[in-house]
Amino acid sequence: LHPIYAEMPVTIFEHMSGLARDLGAINLGQGFPDGPPPAELLRALTRAAMEQSHQYPPMAGLPELRRAVAGFYARIQGLDLAPESVVVTSGATEAIASAILAVVAPGDEVLLFAPAYDAYAPLVRRAGGKPVFVALKPPVWAFDAATIAGAITPRTRVIVLNDPLNPTGTVASPADLALLAGLCVAHDLFAICDEVWENVRFDGRAHASLLAQPGMARRSVKIGSAGKIFGATGWKVGWIVGAPEVAAVVGRAHQFLTFTTPPMLQWAVAEALDDPAIAPGCHAQWSVTRERLIAGLKQQGFCVLDNVATWFTCIDLHASGIALDDRTFSERAVREAGVASIPISALWEGEGRPDHIVRLCHCKNAAMIDEAVDRLGRWR
Amino acid sequence: LHPIYAEMPVTIFEHMSGLARDLGAINLGQGFPDGPPPAELLRALTRAAMEQSHQYPPMAGLPELRRAVAGFYARIQGLDLAPESVVVTSGATEAIASAILAVVAPGDEVLLFAPAYDAYAPLVRRAGGKPVFVALKPPVWAFDAATIAGAITPRTRVIVLNDPLNPTGTVASPADLALLAGLCVAHDLFAICDEVWENVRFDGRAHASLLAQPGMARRSVKIGSAGKIFGATGWKVGWIVGAPEVAAVVGRAHQFLTFTTPPMLQWAVAEALDDPAIAPGCHAQWSVTRERLIAGLKQQGFCVLDNVATWFTCIDLHASGIALDDRTFSERAVREAGVASIPISALWEGEGRPDHIVRLCHCKNAAMIDEAVDRLGRWR
Ligand SMILES: CSCCC(=O)C(=O)O
Ligand SMILES: CSCCC(=O)C(=O)O
Repeated sequence: LHPIYAEMPVTIFEHMSGLARDLGAINLGQGFPDGPPPAELLRALTRAAMEQSHQYPPMAGLPELRRAVAGFYARIQGLDLAPESVVVTSGATEAIASAILAVVAPGDEVLLFAPAYDAYAPLVRRAGGKPVFVALKPPVWAFDAATIAGAITPRTRVIVLNDPLNPTGTVASPADLALLAGLCVAHDLFAICDEVWENVRFDGRAHASLLAQPGMARRSVKIGSAGKIFGATGWKVGWIVGAPEVAAVVGRAHQFLTFTTPPMLQWAVAEALDDPAIAPGCHAQWSVTRERLIAGLKQQGFCVLDNVATWFTCIDLHASGIALDDRTFSERAVREAGVASIPISALWEGEGRPDHIVRLCHCKNAAMIDEAVDRLGRWR
Repeated sequence: LHPIYAEMPVTIFEHMSGLARDLGAINLGQGFPDGPPPAELLRALTRAAMEQSHQYPPMAGLPELRRAVAGFYARIQGLDLAPESVVVTSGATEAIASAILAVVAPGDEVLLFAPAYDAYAPLVRRAGGKPVFVALKPPVWAFDAATIAGAITPRTRVIVLNDPLNPTGTVASPADLALLAGLCVAHDLFAICDEVWENVRFDGRAHASLLAQPGMARRSVKIGSAGKIFGATGWKVGWIVGAPEVAAVVGRAHQFLTFTTPPMLQWAVAEALDDPAIAPGCHAQWSVTRERLIAGLKQQGFCVLDNVATWFTCIDLHASGIALDDRTFSERAVREAGVASIPISALWEGEGRPDHIVRLCHCKNAAMIDEAVDRLGRWR
């Protein structure tokens, strides 16, 4: 059995969700909404289940969904994409796996930023690549030009950018995007842009993709997720967007990972993307609960780090006057306060790991949020 | 872009299905039933969509489905599996990818049998392994002990067995299974057993798994598919079965390919597996259409190769008095006769490739089968 997997512990998400379940704690750990997705999405699903074929859809996705994804990006980000630029995948994780397997060759160095989603490094290693981590510094998690340039070697081939960034909820600025695009062009790097949180942004600005920067169209793919847009994390419908000739090659990797994605889910997502009211409805709900969590935490004396996106809000333990490290906090909070959370250090490899920041998920109903805040406040 | 994918042509299945669609031909190429899956499955799906959570199910699958898979194998194959032995995947392709990524390390040689499903070799290569093909000889596609033993080297680590075998529809005999298990034990090989056709067998015998042979429990995984059992190829619900400690490691690879599989589909498959009448109902239908295709082809003077399983029936062109090679036959038959098929040579790498055998899919309604036979008979 391959040592990458044989020696891998269970993920922090499974670990904390398991504890939350066993202990009956409020789960602000793993990121998922507590409620159902929009009723329109469910109606479209049952309709498609009754009316449409249950056999293999085309490998790259239903034409209707490929068109809907292109239309969605034209509407919300002004991107001009052909349907052939879109490959539907069985969730964004499969999109990330397809992209990494399609572009990383043995010996390649791959730039990753810490903190990082836990799938990137194992997939890079399994593809034969070497992850090279660039640490972002709290509390603002800024991209530092000199540090990034210093991590690039003649073997660097690929950069993975998660923007907006899970777990911090921060976004790359226009200057950051220009910096990263400039480095990609100067060093002939390919960018895998994990933008699953693009539509979960609370500062009123539209998401801007690294893929849309000058020189990036043929050297990048952008990954999106219906689960994040519509709050349906179990649906596992995602996509990869890239220049048609790039998308075609990444599609070959996808073809041998899942081949295709269930048609009734593809039909429903296509309908929901085409309706301009549904995604904003989800967003509005999370905007309210995010503010409620932030206000509540502040009131209980927690130092909340600035964020503008994702389902996550981070607290700084030290600045909150809590002397525990993040792992101890999370392990004790789920047992003693009855609130599950994610310690940022569990999503960190390489230098510069902070040990005093904890992530809380805010896409939960108001009562859950109030009760969690209350419990944390009483317990701290 | 990785050369494995950059230089890969579109698959024969996409190619022939595309031609069938464009030309309005009857599609006996890609394997899928023409009709819907059982009504019970669809009812269970819409019920689950209304009543169950739409958020992340557990990474290894819903406990209910893991139990149902174990129960199904106890019932149909007498296997004694714990639910912890089952990891649910987003289709059997993902199960194959997870298994190959979990067990094949760079430099490993992997024994494959030709003809072979088209996903195996690219995945083995992408994992850093070297596919070593052992040719099976038509018309009976027998396993030859000396040939297999001769292909094993000190670098051989893994064997992939597709049993029942797509595209031939043949099965490994008890003697074949004993031979292969003996070689695995003697040479310390791990077996990936792709048994997606286990429940599509027409000789009245129960499928026997290589995994159940002496000495194999800890050195093999077995892959199954709800899409094949229930004739729902678009559902993409599959599973990997293995000793719990093996399943746990393969589950880590799965975790970073799709993480999980849509819950409403898992609930529906669990219900359908638990009901002992549903799978046999599908099977009975295919049994009738298979016999109809075989009888019709024989009546039109085609030489039909013996088969006992899968959705596929092969014809021998030369023995049928047709001088074309298989690729030419398939390319011309879809255009001139209006019937799509799969040339076996497209599923072949390495030595011994026959060029005179064509695969036809028989899980179609009687009218389609009659019309296809009629067209082929008039055209030949
Ligand atoms: C797939 S489990 C992790 C879910 C998630 O995106 C998160 O909690 O960060
Ligand atoms: C995933 S396309 C191929 C489907 C299939 O199993 C076959 O036709 O052999």
